[in-house]
Amino acid sequence: MKYLAVDVGGTSTRAAVVVEDGTCEGYAKAGRGNPTSSDTSTAIEAIVGAAQAAMDRAGCKPDDVAVGVIGIAGAGGATGAALLRDIIAAGLPERLTLEADHLAAYFSGTLAADGYALVAGTGAAAIRVKGGRIDATCDGLGWLLGDGGSGFWIGHRAVLAATSALDHRGSSTILVDRVLAELGIARTEERLDGRESSLAEAVYAVYRMRPVEIARFAPLVFDAAALGDDVARQIVADAADALTTTLATVVVEQVVGPLVLGGSILSHQRSVADPVAQSFHAAGRAGDGPGVITVSDGLPGAVVLALRRGGLSVDDPTFDRVRASLARSRDLPFSAT
Amino acid sequence: MKYLAVDVGGTSTRAAVVVEDGTCEGYAKAGRGNPTSSDTSTAIEAIVGAAQAAMDRAGCKPDDVAVGVIGIAGAGGATGAALLRDIIAAGLPERLTLEADHLAAYFSGTLAADGYALVAGTGAAAIRVKGGRIDATCDGLGWLLGDGGSGFWIGHRAVLAATSALDHRGSSTILVDRVLAELGIARTEERLDGRESSLAEAVYAVYRMRPVEIARFAPLVFDAAALGDDVARQIVADAADALTTTLATVVVEQVVGPLVLGGSILSHQRSVADPVAQSFHAAGRAGDGPGVITVSDGLPGAVVLALRRGGLSVDDPTFDRVRASLARSRDLPFSAT
Repeated sequence: MKYLAVDVGGTSTRAAVVVEDGTCEGYAKAGRGNPTSSDTSTAIEAIVGAAQAAMDRAGCKPDDVAVGVIGIAGAGGATGAALLRDIIAAGLPERLTLEADHLAAYFSGTLAADGYALVAGTGAAAIRVKGGRIDATCDGLGWLLGDGGSGFWIGHRAVLAATSALDHRGSSTILVDRVLAELGIARTEERLDGRESSLAEAVYAVYRMRPVEIARFAPLVFDAAALGDDVARQIVADAADALTTTLATVVVEQVVGPLVLGGSILSHQRSVADPVAQSFHAAGRAGDGPGVITVSDGLPGAVVLALRRGGLSVDDPTFDRVRASLARSRDLPFSAT
Repeated sequence: MKYLAVDVGGTSTRAAVVVEDGTCEGYAKAGRGNPTSSDTSTAIEAIVGAAQAAMDRAGCKPDDVAVGVIGIAGAGGATGAALLRDIIAAGLPERLTLEADHLAAYFSGTLAADGYALVAGTGAAAIRVKGGRIDATCDGLGWLLGDGGSGFWIGHRAVLAATSALDHRGSSTILVDRVLAELGIARTEERLDGRESSLAEAVYAVYRMRPVEIARFAPLVFDAAALGDDVARQIVADAADALTTTLATVVVEQVVGPLVLGGSILSHQRSVADPVAQSFHAAGRAGDGPGVITVSDGLPGAVVLALRRGGLSVDDPTFDRVRASLARSRDLPFSAT
């Protein structure tokens, strides 16, 4: 029998078909599939596209799939159930379940039944895992109501720093020139209502973006901070603080285990990940294990959850095969889009 | 000859037809007409609807109108010019010009050529007026990038306070129950991913709103602050601070004159308006005049600007007639919608 796993993200969606010993036989990637950051039809298209391409590459028919697991935001609740029906109606095997994307991220880093995960990509959230299930969640409330320390959050602050500096309310920062350049706006002497007209142009351009696209300004902050810009350094420090608070909200004495860090911000930006990891070590809940583990996405964990749903117990050698064969598959030049 | 004036806001649009001595002969009101908070066709419909209803009531044909002035956000720039063409094409007199809504608010309170206006309604901005024109502007950058201390800003913080308290990141506040009640969500024992399920319901409901609609939560903050809720009091204090900063950014030694306060927050909420007014008095730029003047909207100022565009000089008795006759007209029970 084969096992299907899909990891759905705000930027891309990844799918794998594995056999019982954990070896990946087919891998594929598609566009963003998170229904909270795109419309439902785009999400379904990405999920079904990635899954079917992975099945094709594994030479796997729908009837060969024992169990499939899709790691996705909003897996619980009524919207998750409706999405699952639509995905199956679009041609995927019926033996599919949705799992929280953050739980998939957690099991991408560890097989420990108890521990924590903190994810900061386009969005940001922490979970406490107990007995293999989510015991508590903090944040993950999206760009308008939370996601503190996420790519959106950092990118939004970059744009706020640039526009408030142009508006003479905020401190001077090299983010002004960086953000205007990213928007393709040239600075001029021209003025409108007593302000530099490039401010109005920047505001107009940002309002034409989908809010989550503002995450694209986040890299400018890390570049500017590395160059010593005080405003950018403060944004980075504030992002680390926000994520530390989110994590601290779910950490309790009774649950001892590793912390899995995931998402593009925590897997690529040490200036955010290091202080968060330090705060976790200082809390003393890591136990005797590796402490802090960084993962690049939730696909290995979705595979672990699929194998378990299929009644298999996943041991360390199997987990190693999952991760190693997925890593090899990703290096091959194919994707669903 | 007749003079047409329109004041366009994020919540409602008001129009008046006046004669040379400033007496209002026709008044009408329609829905929100601010193109930054609604689509362009809604804005045009509101503006044209209010203007034509006011003209009908004044028994005024398009050819009778010497000059018309529309006070509106984003009057300058290319989008303003396009909007003006569309408004005229929809049947209004051709002798129309757009003026900044904040300048109309300013001249609703004073005829002084130099001074300041601070407006906080759905949005928030400050202007410095010199020689009857806008000399500097601060903020007014909209809900995503500014409008510090506005109705949206306060309402957004109310929702953030409620959701972060439910998420155990934020302090306890009576805003939790107030915001859930406003959203029509009952608190239950039910849990989802280790959190109260009403949090997910609230988040889902808020994301289904147009962002500017979040201003509707602002009154909850003032109610909660009056009851002594610390979180709500802090939001009110932060709103006053944000508006004080916005005003201070445009205040300069060389420009001495009154401060006109406008918009629903500053005209109705003394807990915000008083500290802002105190900061203006402390800056010592008010001169010998009345100091701080509060206006309810920008229609009288749009009338002043229309009379002036028509070549008339507006003196104090005329200004008094404008305000008194508009006040009488508003009390009559008619509106365009």
